[in-house]
Amino acid sequence: MNTLTPDQLTALERQSIELPSWAFGNSGTRFKVYGTPGTPRDPFEKIADAAQVHKHTALAPTVALHIPWDMSDFGDLRKHAEDHGVTLGTINSNTFQDDDYKFGALTHEDAAIRQKAIDHHFECIDVMDATGSRDLKIWLAEGSNYPGQADMRGRQDRLNDSLQKIYARLGDDQRMVLEYKFFEPSFYHTDVPDWGTSYAQVASLGDKALVCLDTGHHAPGTNIEFIVMQLLRLGKLGSFDFNSRFYADDDLIVGAADPFQLFRILFEVIRGDGLNNPDVTFMLDQCHNVEDKIPGQIRSVLNVQEMTARALLVDRDALAAAQRSGDVLAANAVFMDAFYTDARPALAQWRESRGLPADPMAAYAASGYQQKIAADRVGGVQAGWGA
Amino acid sequence: MNTLTPDQLTALERQSIELPSWAFGNSGTRFKVYGTPGTPRDPFEKIADAAQVHKHTALAPTVALHIPWDMSDFGDLRKHAEDHGVTLGTINSNTFQDDDYKFGALTHEDAAIRQKAIDHHFECIDVMDATGSRDLKIWLAEGSNYPGQADMRGRQDRLNDSLQKIYARLGDDQRMVLEYKFFEPSFYHTDVPDWGTSYAQVASLGDKALVCLDTGHHAPGTNIEFIVMQLLRLGKLGSFDFNSRFYADDDLIVGAADPFQLFRILFEVIRGDGLNNPDVTFMLDQCHNVEDKIPGQIRSVLNVQEMTARALLVDRDALAAAQRSGDVLAANAVFMDAFYTDARPALAQWRESRGLPADPMAAYAASGYQQKIAADRVGGVQAGWGA
Amino acid sequence: MNTLTPDQLTALERQSIELPSWAFGNSGTRFKVYGTPGTPRDPFEKIADAAQVHKHTALAPTVALHIPWDMSDFGDLRKHAEDHGVTLGTINSNTFQDDDYKFGALTHEDAAIRQKAIDHHFECIDVMDATGSRDLKIWLAEGSNYPGQADMRGRQDRLNDSLQKIYARLGDDQRMVLEYKFFEPSFYHTDVPDWGTSYAQVASLGDKALVCLDTGHHAPGTNIEFIVMQLLRLGKLGSFDFNSRFYADDDLIVGAADPFQLFRILFEVIRGDGLNNPDVTFMLDQCHNVEDKIPGQIRSVLNVQEMTARALLVDRDALAAAQRSGDVLAANAVFMDAFYTDARPALAQWRESRGLPADPMAAYAASGYQQKIAADRVGGVQAGWGA
Amino acid sequence: MNTLTPDQLTALERQSIELPSWAFGNSGTRFKVYGTPGTPRDPFEKIADAAQVHKHTALAPTVALHIPWDMSDFGDLRKHAEDHGVTLGTINSNTFQDDDYKFGALTHEDAAIRQKAIDHHFECIDVMDATGSRDLKIWLAEGSNYPGQADMRGRQDRLNDSLQKIYARLGDDQRMVLEYKFFEPSFYHTDVPDWGTSYAQVASLGDKALVCLDTGHHAPGTNIEFIVMQLLRLGKLGSFDFNSRFYADDDLIVGAADPFQLFRILFEVIRGDGLNNPDVTFMLDQCHNVEDKIPGQIRSVLNVQEMTARALLVDRDALAAAQRSGDVLAANAVFMDAFYTDARPALAQWRESRGLPADPMAAYAASGYQQKIAADRVGGVQAGWGA
Repeated sequence: MNTLTPDQLTALERQSIELPSWAFGNSGTRFKVYGTPGTPRDPFEKIADAAQVHKHTALAPTVALHIPWDMSDFGDLRKHAEDHGVTLGTINSNTFQDDDYKFGALTHEDAAIRQKAIDHHFECIDVMDATGSRDLKIWLAEGSNYPGQADMRGRQDRLNDSLQKIYARLGDDQRMVLEYKFFEPSFYHTDVPDWGTSYAQVASLGDKALVCLDTGHHAPGTNIEFIVMQLLRLGKLGSFDFNSRFYADDDLIVGAADPFQLFRILFEVIRGDGLNNPDVTFMLDQCHNVEDKIPGQIRSVLNVQEMTARALLVDRDALAAAQRSGDVLAANAVFMDAFYTDARPALAQWRESRGLPADPMAAYAASGYQQKIAADRVGGVQAGWGA
Repeated sequence: MNTLTPDQLTALERQSIELPSWAFGNSGTRFKVYGTPGTPRDPFEKIADAAQVHKHTALAPTVALHIPWDMSDFGDLRKHAEDHGVTLGTINSNTFQDDDYKFGALTHEDAAIRQKAIDHHFECIDVMDATGSRDLKIWLAEGSNYPGQADMRGRQDRLNDSLQKIYARLGDDQRMVLEYKFFEPSFYHTDVPDWGTSYAQVASLGDKALVCLDTGHHAPGTNIEFIVMQLLRLGKLGSFDFNSRFYADDDLIVGAADPFQLFRILFEVIRGDGLNNPDVTFMLDQCHNVEDKIPGQIRSVLNVQEMTARALLVDRDALAAAQRSGDVLAANAVFMDAFYTDARPALAQWRESRGLPADPMAAYAASGYQQKIAADRVGGVQAGWGA
Repeated sequence: MNTLTPDQLTALERQSIELPSWAFGNSGTRFKVYGTPGTPRDPFEKIADAAQVHKHTALAPTVALHIPWDMSDFGDLRKHAEDHGVTLGTINSNTFQDDDYKFGALTHEDAAIRQKAIDHHFECIDVMDATGSRDLKIWLAEGSNYPGQADMRGRQDRLNDSLQKIYARLGDDQRMVLEYKFFEPSFYHTDVPDWGTSYAQVASLGDKALVCLDTGHHAPGTNIEFIVMQLLRLGKLGSFDFNSRFYADDDLIVGAADPFQLFRILFEVIRGDGLNNPDVTFMLDQCHNVEDKIPGQIRSVLNVQEMTARALLVDRDALAAAQRSGDVLAANAVFMDAFYTDARPALAQWRESRGLPADPMAAYAASGYQQKIAADRVGGVQAGWGA
Repeated sequence: MNTLTPDQLTALERQSIELPSWAFGNSGTRFKVYGTPGTPRDPFEKIADAAQVHKHTALAPTVALHIPWDMSDFGDLRKHAEDHGVTLGTINSNTFQDDDYKFGALTHEDAAIRQKAIDHHFECIDVMDATGSRDLKIWLAEGSNYPGQADMRGRQDRLNDSLQKIYARLGDDQRMVLEYKFFEPSFYHTDVPDWGTSYAQVASLGDKALVCLDTGHHAPGTNIEFIVMQLLRLGKLGSFDFNSRFYADDDLIVGAADPFQLFRILFEVIRGDGLNNPDVTFMLDQCHNVEDKIPGQIRSVLNVQEMTARALLVDRDALAAAQRSGDVLAANAVFMDAFYTDARPALAQWRESRGLPADPMAAYAASGYQQKIAADRVGGVQAGWGA
């Protein structure tokens, strides 16, 4: 069992995890954002950093962009990415940093502001055309802080209307994924707070609209793997935003807070034919507030890989037999046996067989890249969540 | 503002809250169930007790039954209810107390056990035919306690299959409401844990299948009024199970834990045309573990009435104006102004004008009913959650 | 019942709620800080704004400062405050915005950084000497984001050592209050996460060290009024930071999220002789992310006053009698009767009798102050959470 | 690293986990208690079952009793235990199943009921004298369901008074451990809801009173290992009740819900010199609602052992160095490296070297014991949480 089968290794070889460009910029809390030497100053430097993750792991061939943070000449950026061995991925819109959006964007009471937000998404679709991206990701940061402040019902209707207009603009091979979030930045209501709302909205739009599940966007105690199962069953899981959390939307390294939860999620992905399924994009969405960013991303993709390997190790025939017979302890034992198994040695060996470093973290540290960017990237403004 | 308008009083006069027969039996925690003198020994005594609530409040004309707990001659029971001034309401099925259902009922791996559970629902529909009830309520208590114990995906598919069979048996004027619950009695996964799952299931069945929202069945921090709004918007809110909670499914008196939340829920009911809407049944579902049961139910319906009155007092034109202008403090003030207003004096006066006691709690206490049942109901087995 | 007694009015007249200078500056989330016209540019303007709250409510005679945000000539600032009818209150230290404190301040592994943080508190005590402030408030923002990142035990010991040094510097009439917080800005462990830790730390220091309870700093579901009761019982409740929350440390207007919880807290304050007790400071700590700041503060102090009035209305003799007799419904009814009572009309009348506006929100809006500061405060840098 | 050192094996060999006699009886939820063939009918059969766990694992040499559930001739029971290779351990009192205790026991308003509860604890101390037990464990199930129902402050004072009387009765070598619990069976307030309250209470009693930490008794998101660290630091961690949970006090198999949390807890135990420390008792407290009881207990003690082994594998020198240098990713990597390591092969080998089965679960299943008790234990009343 400790050895991964050829089929399992093939599945792992096909695994692809999209990186968020913004993970390489500075981030923090409302209290403080710490800067670090070598932080990128523009989208090109972010892409270069992201390419380091792929170089050492072969797990991260695409990079998601955030508009307007990554506005640039997308022909140049696309070529720059390809030169670095990666491609451009999902385009993320931003409707939470313009003064006009203080009380909503796609849901705003004022039709002019709604149109401005819709136009922003049209612009994002133009970017997709230029970058060759398939997916438009909408995280709806809208909501209210006080009971009575907003008409939740009217906003939901307006949201549907706005989404229909954006949906209509999508190309034949393009998709929209709608992310839900329990709370923050709004503290009373969020317009898309749960998977049910995202599902109801996208189901009304059509086949090209799907749900984006961010693993940090749920109420305490939520069984996330159940939602993964349900969305796969309903054919509406468009993408993951992986990260981890102890409390709120902490945006920690994937698997850092609860590796067993990550294992359970990946098991349901496999169970529901979501692994290496082109319809289900794996992405990271994280904030490296106190740790180094490039190795932080390497650690995240390795954690996803490790838990995917362990989830593949579940003896599904034995599991099904134990489940059928109502043998609770036997079924749990089959499941835990895989989770308890250390796949790292087998993965390290296999990595080397593919010309990759056995230990990507060590390889990156030894590469001198961090020192080089710290020395080279002097002056300019470090990238962060501002425009 | 302190005075309720004639229209508001008419809305309040039409308000109807269904009582659960089981609230009059003993209930408790896994640690202890306390009995009390006068507890009913059979469905007829439960109905008699429930009728006391209606007698003093005019708010609770119907009583929900639980099968098999309330199995009896339903012709007799129906007449008994009518003799006491109430009618029989929703029929609740039970798939959580038979040894066969230890690992599932409508979702069970074994087709024979699924059929047994389906047959139980057919029996419930037969009861509905006998009692004249419209609604079949299914609380799905099924799930698992350990990761790996159950195949969540397979269970979801089997659930849908079972529900389709039950749905097909419904009469033209009958409905099914599917209740969701975050956790308990299962502690890892629940087969219908959230409104999204209930919605996806009933949406696939047809117009006669709707969602039942129990106010105690959510993850900590969930914005319940948002779900009320959404289900009303989607045309799928079939019924409420009202109660309140500080922690889990505490099943406390309605409004006891957070009266402002109850107010917000009722405001969204009004906003979404759910008040006195025959499609949206108001029910209680509670456990009076430490307090007297009949006055506990009286307190609950009065709390619903009080918060309905306050929610009706919201100046919706002023609210809409403040919302449109983005005046957060003004909108919140309009909302809070209604919540802060004490509707009790106006309601007491109005009650008297209708020949009802100004203070139903005092009237019940003074009636001597409690002393009478304590004296009369000697011997027999007090009703509880056992068969 | 609807009328406040002379004793109750006297208690209300003595009520004093300290305002945080930083509530008048801009604040927001990690995603966006919205600015508004008229926002203060320096501590003097913050004091002027705070004085408006007191002018219209007579509830807020003192203003807390935050160091270094409010560094200035404290002789001048003190006189400026007095000229505006208020005085300077609690001094708040800041160990969360200096690059040196990325991995801790009073708990840091490096003795030099600990000393720097201790010295900052010495400086705060110097400020207290200059301002005549009694209390030094320490919110310990320290912690870690990842398991293994920090040695929690060693940090706890170092924290105690650092606090002892600061404690030793306090004057005879000065106090230290240590605030605890469940999480944020750290996402795995916080060095003072709960009241127990704060209590154990301050109990080891001496009588001049007490606990500060921020109502937004607890785990979901925590019974905060129990902690209030316990700390009063142990003689260690030094101060409150009032605000409200639905999810995390949302820092909303006091009483906005759960007015009944605020009522319960204030009832325990009264029960434990904490009302108008000079040992127990009432403070606000809030962020007005989307609402106007000055009226936001007015709303908060009015909410505290309203719920204090309602809590004073509890018939404690009747309550005690019901509690003694085990009459759950009667005890709860006595309690809820007070909460359900609208004290606003009586308070408005009483306010007018004291020469205050019946409706402070309306009076402020009519005063033209907001328009004046919006017009006058042009140029400069709006105050916020930066230095 | 994959090999446990002799020192580590010695530490593991000394590990001792006390079993709760009640885990072998039936338990369930308020909805249903499922019985299973072979369930013990009396304390003697419970002891025999518990001895099976020790026989196959050498990890569980003592069995805790619950009074009055396990009332018997304790001379006989003690000898019976010794004949089965185990000894009697902690005595657990019960103040939650007598009708008199509906509104409190040690905290009750009525001095006569308080005295009855105190007398029950005197009786438990008598049992301790007869069984040779050192520890008296008090889980305080008391509290209230509704705001206003109880005078929390008065109850806290009466609790202290009652505990002092019990404490005074303890022998020189006896101890009291006071367990805290967030909620249940009370749903508004619990008289000892958190570690701070338990600590404040026992600290006022003396050195023989300590805190009992049940891993399932915290608010959502609580960092339990922090509390372990703090109580060890304060010298007040008397015992653990191990189990696991996803939602509330689910009482699942230890480590089943979050193995990484168990690892972190055991790391802090080691860090704070709590492992194999006679002052810190390791106990289980669980409910095997749906799984077989004896193998359920075997699984639990094996999970504790596995995570203890992994926690021992943490390279503490490397960890300290990384922590000192502020290298977040390196420190986390050292920590995770141990958690990711599979200690099962090494433990299996070592078990065999001590004459124990490599796979205790398989050995128990093969032993035929379960079939034997199912066949033998016919008639009588299966033990559960009733008397």
